[in-house]
Amino acid sequence: MFSRFFAPTVEVSAHCDLPCGIYDPAQAKLEAESVKACMTKVMDNDDPDFKARARTIKEERSDLVKHHLWVLWTDYFKPPHFEKYPNLNQLFNEATKLAGGGGGTKATWDVAVADQLLAKIDEIAAIFWETKKAAA
Amino acid sequence: MFSRFFAPTVEVSAHCDLPCGIYDPAQAKLEAESVKACMTKVMDNDDPDFKARARTIKEERSDLVKHHLWVLWTDYFKPPHFEKYPNLNQLFNEATKLAGGGGGTKATWDVAVADQLLAKIDEIAAIFWETKKAAA
Amino acid sequence: MFSRFFAPTVEVSAHCDLPCGIYDPAQAKLEAESVKACMTKVMDNDDPDFKARARTIKEERSDLVKHHLWVLWTDYFKPPHFEKYPNLNQLFNEATKLAGGGGGTKATWDVAVADQLLAKIDEIAAIFWETKKAAA
Amino acid sequence: MFSRFFAPTVEVSAHCDLPCGIYDPAQAKLEAESVKACMTKVMDNDDPDFKARARTIKEERSDLVKHHLWVLWTDYFKPPHFEKYPNLNQLFNEATKLAGGGGGTKATWDVAVADQLLAKIDEIAAIFWETKKAAA
Amino acid sequence: MFSRFFAPTVEVSAHCDLPCGIYDPAQAKLEAESVKACMTKVMDNDDPDFKARARTIKEERSDLVKHHLWVLWTDYFKPPHFEKYPNLNQLFNEATKLAGGGGGTKATWDVAVADQLLAKIDEIAAIFWETKKAAA
Amino acid sequence: MFSRFFAPTVEVSAHCDLPCGIYDPAQAKLEAESVKACMTKVMDNDDPDFKARARTIKEERSDLVKHHLWVLWTDYFKPPHFEKYPNLNQLFNEATKLAGGGGGTKATWDVAVADQLLAKIDEIAAIFWETKKAAA
Repeated sequence: MFSRFFAPTVEVSAHCDLPCGIYDPAQAKLEAESVKACMTKVMDNDDPDFKARARTIKEERSDLVKHHLWVLWTDYFKPPHFEKYPNLNQLFNEATKLAGGGGGTKATWDVAVADQLLAKIDEIAAIFWETKKAAA
Repeated sequence: MFSRFFAPTVEVSAHCDLPCGIYDPAQAKLEAESVKACMTKVMDNDDPDFKARARTIKEERSDLVKHHLWVLWTDYFKPPHFEKYPNLNQLFNEATKLAGGGGGTKATWDVAVADQLLAKIDEIAAIFWETKKAAA
Repeated sequence: MFSRFFAPTVEVSAHCDLPCGIYDPAQAKLEAESVKACMTKVMDNDDPDFKARARTIKEERSDLVKHHLWVLWTDYFKPPHFEKYPNLNQLFNEATKLAGGGGGTKATWDVAVADQLLAKIDEIAAIFWETKKAAA
Repeated sequence: MFSRFFAPTVEVSAHCDLPCGIYDPAQAKLEAESVKACMTKVMDNDDPDFKARARTIKEERSDLVKHHLWVLWTDYFKPPHFEKYPNLNQLFNEATKLAGGGGGTKATWDVAVADQLLAKIDEIAAIFWETKKAAA
Repeated sequence: MFSRFFAPTVEVSAHCDLPCGIYDPAQAKLEAESVKACMTKVMDNDDPDFKARARTIKEERSDLVKHHLWVLWTDYFKPPHFEKYPNLNQLFNEATKLAGGGGGTKATWDVAVADQLLAKIDEIAAIFWETKKAAA
Repeated sequence: MFSRFFAPTVEVSAHCDLPCGIYDPAQAKLEAESVKACMTKVMDNDDPDFKARARTIKEERSDLVKHHLWVLWTDYFKPPHFEKYPNLNQLFNEATKLAGGGGGTKATWDVAVADQLLAKIDEIAAIFWETKKAAA
């Protein structure tokens, strides 16, 4: 059973700016899932302390989403990728805005915004894995 | 193809100490893969600047491995888990030691140590996913 | 008895993962005292801004307690220690849980929880100084 | 004399993701100047310890350049800006790459690369101040 | 127009403890402006979530003000400066207190406190630029 | 004499900027001991990797010394203290310089510099505990 769960993660890995050449959109997705979980848990809990803690954690996790996406955009994707996927810049800009203040997950409890963020990350991940396959 | 890659990550998610109740050993694994990549890349590169940067990054990434494992050990696993898996404490202690100084990945370029660390993380992940299934 | 255990802190020192070989449970205790102080000060101050700031600081300080304890557990204590003190793993796991969310100091204003955390740290410190004396 | 120096900074200010609505490319420029200073100082100093410290600091400062630029790109610039300045995405992507590993300031001692980075930041700053004037 | 804005920043730059020998009070001022912006924006916004986020951000930005001022005080200013400007120590101590808890910007929404902090930073900056001119 | 000053550390506690009102020079001392340990361990170990890691850790620990001292200087000591101890500003400025670059512990392997730093911290601690006793 384990191998089924982990077959994919054999290829997953963390980014570093050596660069180690290993990237994975799962890192941004992980944090975005946590942002969404903070929102949903607050719906079922009217303790003001709990909501205050969730707000701070949601802020931090949204920041991590932005960071992981920025790293992919700058460090993984190269000029040929941007030529092949003309909407890539916009996708990253919209996704990181969705994890920020203003209308983003930092400033709202609306789960729909977290879902939009997750959908953008999936769009980016789809392109990411396509480029990995093309390079294989 | 994409869905096949991401089917598992539907369940993956980041930890927060709300707790949001979502954890994934992939975070520790991601960083451990990066540690290993720093080691292997240095084998093929005798630039002293490159090696110096790899050393620092390997140190930081090893620290992240320790952090993510500590979070699982303290925040995810509960007394019944430790009863059911008597070696769980030792597994975590050994895995975090393998990512530290002394004989760990911070203090060596030996890829075998990174592989031992990855193997320990897989052992922990196997137990983790078993408990998730049992709870489902 | 406590002061006896702290006589050794004349050799106080910080941990680093060189490892520099110097550790001290006082670091975790320092942060736990601050967590308790945040709780007690809020009792005497009904300014919502003050309470909100105390909540955030209590969260950060609780995190530091966990970090300092994890470092001791992984980096200072060795297999022979765990053999000699069979409850050591449990002590660390319970202490770090007491500094976390859920029932821990991050999620409550109950000073009794901070006192339980401080008591666990004292138990760990007692074992720590015993091992230092045994090694001297 | 002082007022002449600080007239501009009356408008400068730090970013926060409230958002507080205040941004300034000077933050990225400040760090890029530090990166360049690390490079030039090493030219005149053959102490290996000094060079090792400069390498680490150059790495950290380059990271800060990337961070400050990413914040501007995501949080300050809006869709109409990207329409009016079609090269804006590319400018930010190239500037942040110039502050990274691979061919960027993290991986080289070549002052020319720091100068290219500074020039890109000035290009971005020119557009930034144009948009601020247009909005005034 | 741009060159007029950026003429001064030709000399501005970030601190590092190499030391790279480059300092600028603008960094502290940038963060203090952000602290003030958090206060003023809250006046026009009675959303409790917005105020809670502003409180946390104001706390972080105030911390950055303290950090940048401490760096100037320790790393840039030398004994002859303290002899020439006998009130320099007091200026830094008062400015950093104004960015702290108690009566400082962390603990209040009173814009007058942020203005006092900004005025202190300007006093420090005036002395800073005088010493730079004297050294030129 | 030192042990007399550390008797109070039975009430050891960490600083936070609530302020929680609890401070202890032991935090700075802990990090300074670690800085010294990095230096002494390098004397007995000519492995270049070990020395490189020690250099980075020594840099980080020296930074922590500066931070903990700055906190005491700004947050604990009040105007009456500076009147009563006219050399207090200079003590803190010299101590933090000793933990910095240039002639400080970041830039040297000379244990004598770490000892000078430790001695300054003891001078500060002596004054600190006197003021605590006076306030008791």
